[in-house]
Parts: sequence; C-alpha cells; structure tokens
Amino acid sequence: MLKRNADTLDSLFNPGSVAIAGAGSLGIGQAFLTCLLDSGYKGKIYPLSPKGGEVMGLTVYPSVTDVPDAVDLVIACVPARLAIQLLRDCAAKGVKAVSFYTAGFGERGDEQGQDLEKDLLRIARSAGVRILGPNCVGVYHPRVGLSFSSDNPRESGAAALICQSGGNSIYTVRAAACRGIRFSKAVSYGNALDIDESELLAYFRQDSETELVAAYIEGVKDGRRFYRTLRELTAVKPVIVFKAGRSEAGARAAASHTSALAGSDGVWDRLLHQAGAIRVESTDEIVDMLVAFSYLGVPRGRRIGVWGGGGGLSVMMLDEFSGAGFLLPASPPRLQQEVWEEVRPFVNTDAGFILNNPFDLTTLNSAEGHYRVLKKLASHEGFDLMVGQVSINNSGWPHKDFGLSVWPDYFTDAAIRVRSETGKPVAVIIHSVLSNWDSDRAVTLQQKCCDAGLPVFRSIPSAARAMDRFLRYHERRNGI
Amino acid sequence: MLKRNADTLDSLFNPGSVAIAGAGSLGIGQAFLTCLLDSGYKGKIYPLSPKGGEVMGLTVYPSVTDVPDAVDLVIACVPARLAIQLLRDCAAKGVKAVSFYTAGFGERGDEQGQDLEKDLLRIARSAGVRILGPNCVGVYHPRVGLSFSSDNPRESGAAALICQSGGNSIYTVRAAACRGIRFSKAVSYGNALDIDESELLAYFRQDSETELVAAYIEGVKDGRRFYRTLRELTAVKPVIVFKAGRSEAGARAAASHTSALAGSDGVWDRLLHQAGAIRVESTDEIVDMLVAFSYLGVPRGRRIGVWGGGGGLSVMMLDEFSGAGFLLPASPPRLQQEVWEEVRPFVNTDAGFILNNPFDLTTLNSAEGHYRVLKKLASHEGFDLMVGQVSINNSGWPHKDFGLSVWPDYFTDAAIRVRSETGKPVAVIIHSVLSNWDSDRAVTLQQKCCDAGLPVFRSIPSAARAMDRFLRYHERRNGI
Repeated sequence: MLKRNADTLDSLFNPGSVAIAGAGSLGIGQAFLTCLLDSGYKGKIYPLSPKGGEVMGLTVYPSVTDVPDAVDLVIACVPARLAIQLLRDCAAKGVKAVSFYTAGFGERGDEQGQDLEKDLLRIARSAGVRILGPNCVGVYHPRVGLSFSSDNPRESGAAALICQSGGNSIYTVRAAACRGIRFSKAVSYGNALDIDESELLAYFRQDSETELVAAYIEGVKDGRRFYRTLRELTAVKPVIVFKAGRSEAGARAAASHTSALAGSDGVWDRLLHQAGAIRVESTDEIVDMLVAFSYLGVPRGRRIGVWGGGGGLSVMMLDEFSGAGFLLPASPPRLQQEVWEEVRPFVNTDAGFILNNPFDLTTLNSAEGHYRVLKKLASHEGFDLMVGQVSINNSGWPHKDFGLSVWPDYFTDAAIRVRSETGKPVAVIIHSVLSNWDSDRAVTLQQKCCDAGLPVFRSIPSAARAMDRFLRYHERRNGI
Repeated sequence: MLKRNADTLDSLFNPGSVAIAGAGSLGIGQAFLTCLLDSGYKGKIYPLSPKGGEVMGLTVYPSVTDVPDAVDLVIACVPARLAIQLLRDCAAKGVKAVSFYTAGFGERGDEQGQDLEKDLLRIARSAGVRILGPNCVGVYHPRVGLSFSSDNPRESGAAALICQSGGNSIYTVRAAACRGIRFSKAVSYGNALDIDESELLAYFRQDSETELVAAYIEGVKDGRRFYRTLRELTAVKPVIVFKAGRSEAGARAAASHTSALAGSDGVWDRLLHQAGAIRVESTDEIVDMLVAFSYLGVPRGRRIGVWGGGGGLSVMMLDEFSGAGFLLPASPPRLQQEVWEEVRPFVNTDAGFILNNPFDLTTLNSAEGHYRVLKKLASHEGFDLMVGQVSINNSGWPHKDFGLSVWPDYFTDAAIRVRSETGKPVAVIIHSVLSNWDSDRAVTLQQKCCDAGLPVFRSIPSAARAMDRFLRYHERRNGI
C-alpha cells in the first residue's frame, strides 16, 4: 500500500493541469469546464471526449492518453461502466488524482457496484493514482481557481469544508458565502473510496490556509482512526461536525446515498464530544457556526444586551437566549435614563419604547438616534455582547414606501459603526423574509453587514443556538 | 358591570362606520385610513383631527362629536395624554368600541400608566364603550374590509388569530397569507385592558366564520377563566397557542411590552396540554400549524414516503421525520422495481437515484417522469402520506439557466396533480432560499402550490415538527 499521508493530496488541490472526461456534449462535464473557466483556473484545461473537436475554444482530446502534456487531475463525468477504462488510461498517463463525479458504485447496494469500487481502488493503489469520490462534486480551491460552482467566490478565506454530499457541498459554500464566509478549500468526497474524511481532516490540520474546519459526514469506515485524527485536529483548530444518518431510517438513506455506514447515534454523540468537536444538525447550522467563529469575537461572558424592533419579537429574543443559557440582566435605572436621553431628541412620544433590556426601538426612526442608543448600550460594562434583531417584513408596515422601511438601514448602520468604535462583540439577526421585496432588502442589508465583518444570523432561535455553541466551545477550552 | 359576553364584540368586528382619531397629518392615523380604503371597507369613514380640512378625499372632523352620523368604531391614534378626552367624546357620541393603537399605559410600568388605564376602563364601563388594546393594531376582518395592513388579503378564510403583539399580528397574517391561509378575523389586543384573550376565544367558539383558532399570548390576568374558555373552545375547534414570556427575562420583556403577567412556564405547559391546545414556539410555527390543519388532510397513520432532490437532503428528511416520531418504511423491492420502470424511459443512467424510501429523483429531469413516479408512490398502500422536498438554491446548479432549474416545477406540478388524483395526503417543503433569484423562484412555486391547496412548508425540521403536532392532535382525539 502506498503512503497515504496528507501531502499526497497536493495533486488534488494544486494541479498544474486538469482534464475533464465526458465533456463532449452539453452536460455535467461542460458544466465543470465552465466552472474552471469562470473561476479563473490558471493551469492547462483539457476537455476529453471520443467526439474530439473543440468546446469553449479548447481542443477536445479523445482520451487522456492523447493529451500532449502532463495531466495532474482528471474530473471524471463519464458513466460508471467507463470508469475502469478511464482510470487505466489515467494510470498509463501518470495522472496523479481523479475526482469522480460519476456515481453508480457502492451506493447501489448490489454486488456489481461493490465490485466496480474494488476494481477502481485496486487499479488506483497499484498505479499511485488518488481517487476522490466516486459520487462527489470534487474540489473548490479558490486560490488556484478550482471550483464546482461558477458562482462560488473567487476569494479565499480561512474555513475548510469536507462534505460527503455533493448537494450539501454546493449549498453550504453558497449559503456561507452570502454570510461573508470565504473558504480555503472545500471538498466533496462522496463514497470515500480512497481519500476519506480522516485523511482530509489530517490534511486540514497542517494546511496553513485553514483556520477552522466544518464537516458533513454520513459515515466512517475506520472509527478509531477518525477519532484520533479528529482529536488531533480539534487540538489546534475548531471543528464543526454535522453527522447525518442519526436515525435507523436515515442510516438506510445514507447507505443508499454514499454507501456510508452511519453507526449508532449515541456512539457518535459521545465520540464527537470527547474529541472536542462541535456537533450541529444541519448545513445551515454549519454556516451559523462558521459565522460565529469568523466574525463574532469572544465575549467575556454570557450577559447579553438585546435591542431591535418589535415588542413581541423582543420577548422572543429574551426567551430564546435565556433558553440557550445566556444571561439577560435587567437594565439598571441609570442606563435606562441615559438611553432615554439619547432617544428623546428624535421622538415626540415616550410610548412604544422598551428600555429594560430588551431595548425595543421600533418607533425610533432616526439614523443618529440608533447610533447614539447603541453606542450607549455597547459601552455599558454590564453587557458582554449585544444582539439585535430586525424583522424585514415588518419594516414594510404600514407601507413599503413609508416610515419604517428605512429602519433596517439605521439599525444595521448603527451596529456596524458601534462595533467598530467599541470593539464589543455585536451580532445582528436579519429575519422574517416573505416576499421578493423582503428578499431584496435582506440580501442588500446582509451584504452590507458582511462587507463590514459584522456577524449576521437569519432567525432568532438559530442565532441563540449558534452563539451558545460558540460560547460553550470557548468555556470548555477555558475550563469553565 | 355591563354584560361582556361575546355578542357585544359585534360592534368591533362589524362596525357600520369607523372614525380614525389622529388622522390629521402623515402618520399612523393616515396609514390606518389607507388600510380601510385599500381593503374595501363598505361603511362610512371619518378621519378626525383638530386641523379639520380634507384627507384622501374625506372630510376631517375636529372631534368624533362633530361627526354628523353615528360612529360605531373609533381607531385611536392619538397620544396617550389625549386618550381620556377622546374616550369621553366617544362615550358622549354613543360610539360602541374604541381600538387604541395608542400606547403608553400599563406597559410603562409606572403609576401614571396604571392610573391612565384605570381611568380609561372606568369611563368605558360606565358608558358601555368597549376598548380593544390599548397598544394594539386592532382588527382585520376581510369580509367587511377592516384591516391593519394594506396588503392583507381581501378574501376571507376559516382561521382566526388573536395576538397580543401588534408586530406579530402583522407578520403572522402576512406569513400565513403567503402559504395560502385566509382569515375569518384577526385581532391584535395589546394590553387587554377590557376585551381580553378569554372573551375573544369565547367569541371565536361561536363564530360561524371560524374553524380553527391561533393565539399569541404574553400573559393572562384570570387564569381560571382562560382555562375554562380555552377548554370549551378546543372541544369544538383546533386551537394553536404560542405562549411567550417563558423565561424570567422574557416575562420581564412581556410586562414592558403589554403589561402582561407571564406566569410560570411549567404551569402554562400543563394548562395548555390539559385544555387540549397545541403549543408552539414561534409565529412561524403558528403558520405551519394553520397550513397543516387547512391543507394536509388527516393521514391514516404515520408511515411516510419521502421524495425529492438531493442525497444529503434525503438523509436529513429521514432523520428529521424519524426524530419527530414518524415511520419511514423501506420500499419493498417490488415497489422499487415499479418505480424504476417509471423512471427508466426518461434517463440514460441508473446512477444517482435512491429508490429505497427516500426516493431521490435529482437526476430525473422530466415532467412526465416526476408525475409517474409520484403517482406510483402515492398509490402505494404502505405510505399514509407523501412528503417531498426541493432545495431552491441547488436547483440553480450547475447553472441557473440550465438543467435543474426547471426541476422544481416538475416536482411541484407532480405533487399538485397526484394529490388531486389520488386523494393521498401530500406535502411539499420548498427550502434553501439564498438569493433574489431563489426568492423569486420560491415565491412563484409556493403561490402555485397554495392556489392548488397543496400544503407548503419552508424547512425540513419545521415541516417534521408541524406534521407531528398535527398527527398528535388527531391521535389524541382518537384516543391513540
């Protein structure tokens, strides 16, 4: 058996040239080709198809063995029945890694699929070719222009993602991108025939581009190795794990999806906890944790000051954050008085305000007023962090072109400015999006916040859950 | 004390004429006026303001006593300091009910606010004027054209909402409207000074327009009366309750918001359960329950067939629905074979399908194929209901103008058609909306489903939770 240590993955992440097998007609192969072109891949690109000819201005070669230069990585979009021949050609050509989008292997659940996988692995091992997948969308490495989606950001960041599901890989990168997260690398690894979660985790432990790691896992084959690798990784970088296939039925689905052995959920729960990983329950929760780690800043404690618009929503904020283990200290009378002094110049009534933590500013329709109030609150020593919420839909009341529709701008502008001026951890929740008008507003505001490095969450309960997990991580490390 | 039984609320819900106090300048009074005009209110409308003149083509009267005809309902948007005089004028005029948008009463938490409320109540009781609020957005009764939001639907429906928070009233009606729910009446009741939750629940028990009732409650003053009324209501109509102010801090917020006494959450939990109400934890969950009761249909049991797009998402579906107490039986080999026969004419590979319950149809890009597969599944006796999911964002991969972007249409069209043809309960989950392109797609698809009476949920976990609560309600009634 060849050495399988982390540095053999370099050909996968940093190929000098890429060939795409199955790029002869409009379909997934040409989609991957488009991704490479759109993502600014700097190396040579060789579309492969028995048809030959040209596609997108590039010469199409019948086989990888026909390519005149060296090929480091092949993205395989051929049907499963052609996979063995393709891999043999790759071995002959000296290709270093093959990323198989191709599905129809172990996840079929029959002998034919299993045998195909065994053959693939045997050929790969004897020739020293590494295999990603099969049944995956491959690698996203923005620094070199590798991508599995044309609209993935071209800028790099500090987060790494390993993801057993292709669809979840695509969604998680996009959802995170909307929230200001950029990736060092993301890897969809499907059936994990050769390159598996443990090897990838070990790789990201030493990858200097990567500061935190998220994983979507349906099952692992070698639990001990996984535990050991995970533990070594959590010792140096935060690790977020969404383990799917929790239920018996879910485990059946996982087997059909990526031939994964899901394992007992109770065992997984203990394993992840003991290894020091942060367990979450969805790809959206992965994104929430990436946002918390990337942008929130570590507060000194759990005392939250809550502000925003809407009395009922303010009650919900306190319930949800209390339920998640935060402290919501009442505002001292002096602070209430000081806040009221800031509000007073901008309003003609004292009704409709709550200044008791929560601080409900629904009727404060002034940019300067929002800034002054939040500055006062963030400067209060009794709050370790400030969390604000705005209902986008309600800001359209009583009318979209009137009154409250600018409120969210005042709210977010104040949050951005005060956070930068005080250094206190501040997070905002931009929620309750129903219509296209709402979406347009929310996307714009979210972008503005992300550009300023402000953490944005998209619902009150999910924000409370993410911040609690973030705090627990740091409390555990500090022995609290 | 005057009689306070349900029929005295008629003046509130069916006024022959409405005056709006505080409509002299651009502001909330004129917003309510616009709502009445936009909502097609058929009775007379009288804007009131000391300024006089005209607004929106209507004569403005200095005081309600100057109005030449009878006034049934006054919507009060004056400052709190003018509330007493306004109420005296209303009493003199013979006004039957006043809906106070005006805030600044008991929720202030000081003696002045308490005293103002006592005075209001005394005047109202002695003159036989009913008070809604104060500190509320009032009544939405589409049949007569009363509304607190210009974009609330003008059509009536079977759901009633009582809601202690104005903001939550606005959001809940809008969010429900997007999901195909129409209301008999919705009432925002704020501080519950006179008309309170119990009287409203009693009213909706006998209201022939209303078939199910949802409530957002921060606190009640008379727990015994509330319990008795609620129990009488649940005996004849389903009741969904979101009780806020669960935590100590949340209770403080509720007191500052609507002067509510939130009470012990443990007591509330037992009370709601014993009274037969369905407890939920957010306005979004209220909407989910309204959707389930209005559109799902009662399945014979808990055996779910799951279909949709995306392997990882399929695993999540099984985990979430298993976790919510549903049964996800494996597909018998014969059904798998039959489904495959339906799929085969439309695909050129057998890879990428899961036909094992979940049924993952990601690569089935054919309207007819979707219809045939779902028809087969919904006709299977082993499934009591079918639940499908589509990730809107992922349908834009590999490219928005290409391939999978029509998949969601095939998916929803099949769901609509098969449900109508088979009568089997079918629900769809339209989720993962990130961009404005996604929003536009999701809003359009959701509308199409709602028009056809298909229940739509917006996330996998929320759908599982709502359907479980719906089933538990029916199981309890059937003694299961």
